[in-house]
Amino acid sequence: MGKITVIGIGPGSLDEMTPRARAAIEAADVIAGFTTYIKFIDELIKGREVIGTGMMQEVDRCRLAVKCAAEGKKAVMISSGDAGIYGMAGLVYEIAFGYPQETRPEVEIIAGISAVNAAAAVLGAPLMHDFVVISLSDRLTPWGLIKKRAALAAQGDYVIALYNPKSKSRVKNIDEIHDILMQYKSPETPVGIVRSASRSDERKIITNLRDFTNEEIDMFSIVIIGNSKTFVRDGVMVTPRGYKL
Amino acid sequence: MGKITVIGIGPGSLDEMTPRARAAIEAADVIAGFTTYIKFIDELIKGREVIGTGMMQEVDRCRLAVKCAAEGKKAVMISSGDAGIYGMAGLVYEIAFGYPQETRPEVEIIAGISAVNAAAAVLGAPLMHDFVVISLSDRLTPWGLIKKRAALAAQGDYVIALYNPKSKSRVKNIDEIHDILMQYKSPETPVGIVRSASRSDERKIITNLRDFTNEEIDMFSIVIIGNSKTFVRDGVMVTPRGYKL
Repeated sequence: MGKITVIGIGPGSLDEMTPRARAAIEAADVIAGFTTYIKFIDELIKGREVIGTGMMQEVDRCRLAVKCAAEGKKAVMISSGDAGIYGMAGLVYEIAFGYPQETRPEVEIIAGISAVNAAAAVLGAPLMHDFVVISLSDRLTPWGLIKKRAALAAQGDYVIALYNPKSKSRVKNIDEIHDILMQYKSPETPVGIVRSASRSDERKIITNLRDFTNEEIDMFSIVIIGNSKTFVRDGVMVTPRGYKL
Repeated sequence: MGKITVIGIGPGSLDEMTPRARAAIEAADVIAGFTTYIKFIDELIKGREVIGTGMMQEVDRCRLAVKCAAEGKKAVMISSGDAGIYGMAGLVYEIAFGYPQETRPEVEIIAGISAVNAAAAVLGAPLMHDFVVISLSDRLTPWGLIKKRAALAAQGDYVIALYNPKSKSRVKNIDEIHDILMQYKSPETPVGIVRSASRSDERKIITNLRDFTNEEIDMFSIVIIGNSKTFVRDGVMVTPRGYKL
């Protein structure tokens, strides 16, 4: 009986991957992941078997990796950011549970720096208070539920972090969410957009709720919308925790 | 003009701190932080100046560290987990903004594995869908707002992660939140409680919404409450992302 380790590799640079994650990758027989993310760890995987597949082939990729583990190999499945946040951790468990107990591989999860944490660090300190994380991809979630969640988050004055805000085929969702948030929040609420946090092509924009959908946003962007106390100063976005100074 | 680097050291083991965080600590002249967390990185700080203070002295500690940086020293301020999530990132910015531009130290934030990510990895994959993070400490936030946020999160069927669920002087908040969540969610909803994730004294409990307040919970615990799809199997808590298998 083998083992599959599901690893969050962090934002992309080896400098922001934990030693625990790195050691697990270096010890693996087989490395699986979305091809774009495999490239980030290229120098660690020399000579090992790689299962690299494109976007939208998550289930096939996970099935293959779990099968390798069930056959006795040491397999790792990588996700960018943290594997437990819109990554592969859940799917690997679900597929592993499909094996009878005798042949089911062990599953271990190694946490990584998630995209929202990396983006927040680039913007300043926008997540310092209660926050929600919502994916705007309606591929696996009813769009009505996503809109409802956004409205409730706005009513609760949460800081709101959006994953998958936009893709080539999904361009309208962000506009609908914008309109929902504008019903409850000030149009001047600070909004930060970060693309490729901690990578060489990192880009950050700080704007406001009224205008942020005019900026360039894609599937690699994280959008963080402040709460009613969030402020911007000298290009830094800060949500106060509430300390008296 | 000096620099202060605010660092998330992760859950506590050096194995889960990024090389970027470690390098910044090793390069520092002065290291500041809550004494309990300073101990986690003891072996990295030999011979350097340490500003270690107790809980509840955050403002004094940050003022001292920022002052050292303003005087030209390389200072680091450490938080456990991620400094941008209920950590010191915001406070350091706020204090630095109190200095005139000429003497204001540069501030850099280095993200860490946050407590909620570490706890999720221990439990399985509970955060795989939209989630909220709420602190139950009402020291800096009106209790009414915290309760309102919990109710809205429950109505949105978010996965709910609770920081600071209980302390010696604050024992009733968790019961009130329990009663609010019970109004909207099934009593059978899976709940995971993790204390000291990834440390030698790590402890995890998986129970349900009806019963979880009967378990031992303290200020070092993270509580993760599932959404309506979250299930428990073989001691693992999983929130499905929605893939068809």
